[in-house]
Amino acid sequence: MFNIDHLGIAVKSIAAAKGIYEKLGLKISPEEIVEGEQVKLVMIPVGESRLELLEPISESSPIARFLAKRGEGLHHISLRVPDLAAVVKKLKSEGVRLVSNEIKVGAGGHRYMFVHPSSAGGVLLELVESRDQ
Amino acid sequence: MFNIDHLGIAVKSIAAAKGIYEKLGLKISPEEIVEGEQVKLVMIPVGESRLELLEPISESSPIARFLAKRGEGLHHISLRVPDLAAVVKKLKSEGVRLVSNEIKVGAGGHRYMFVHPSSAGGVLLELVESRDQ
Repeated sequence: MFNIDHLGIAVKSIAAAKGIYEKLGLKISPEEIVEGEQVKLVMIPVGESRLELLEPISESSPIARFLAKRGEGLHHISLRVPDLAAVVKKLKSEGVRLVSNEIKVGAGGHRYMFVHPSSAGGVLLELVESRDQ
Repeated sequence: MFNIDHLGIAVKSIAAAKGIYEKLGLKISPEEIVEGEQVKLVMIPVGESRLELLEPISESSPIARFLAKRGEGLHHISLRVPDLAAVVKKLKSEGVRLVSNEIKVGAGGHRYMFVHPSSAGGVLLELVESRDQ
């Protein structure tokens, strides 16, 4: 039910950062561009999870701002949860700080919500709806 | 074969940081102390992986130094690999920067090696031997 969907890693250069994973023998997806976030990305399946390398394609990208402030490294942890609406309702009722008020719908129709790092030990925590729901 | 064994997350307070995971309905292990690293930790199973919350118990802990420099957040990503000795040999031959020269043996006899963040897109990447080997 619960598992780690992916880890988003902010990098200056996908071409440079993907090397270690290629050397480990992992498969790297083709590059994909997400205009709305002004990033390009590749996905690296690892067991039931994926690593997502994120490189900004303009300075207006949130990933560009992250790199300027924090440098390369983990940007977010994405967990699959069984019933996102129920989870979000429960977290709100318990005073957890969420990044937006409503569940958002992203590319491919996946539904997601971010928990603010101040409520999750410094980690930007994405919750996504389980694929098996 | 390959999967994410665990994510190490540096926190100031396990008591505070574990709250979000309890609210999500995840199980938290009892606290454990690792004297050698001067940390206490809890493990949170998530699918085939685990989240590891790490809190320093003294200022000499590497986690205390990490918190002072970077603040709370992801400390390392640990990947299970099928044949650690072969992987380490290959990475060395390809010039990947490793944190130590030899594979180390940790608590419970698990064998591990760290790849330096400069060779892994800013991420401290731990490689551990697969349990099924």
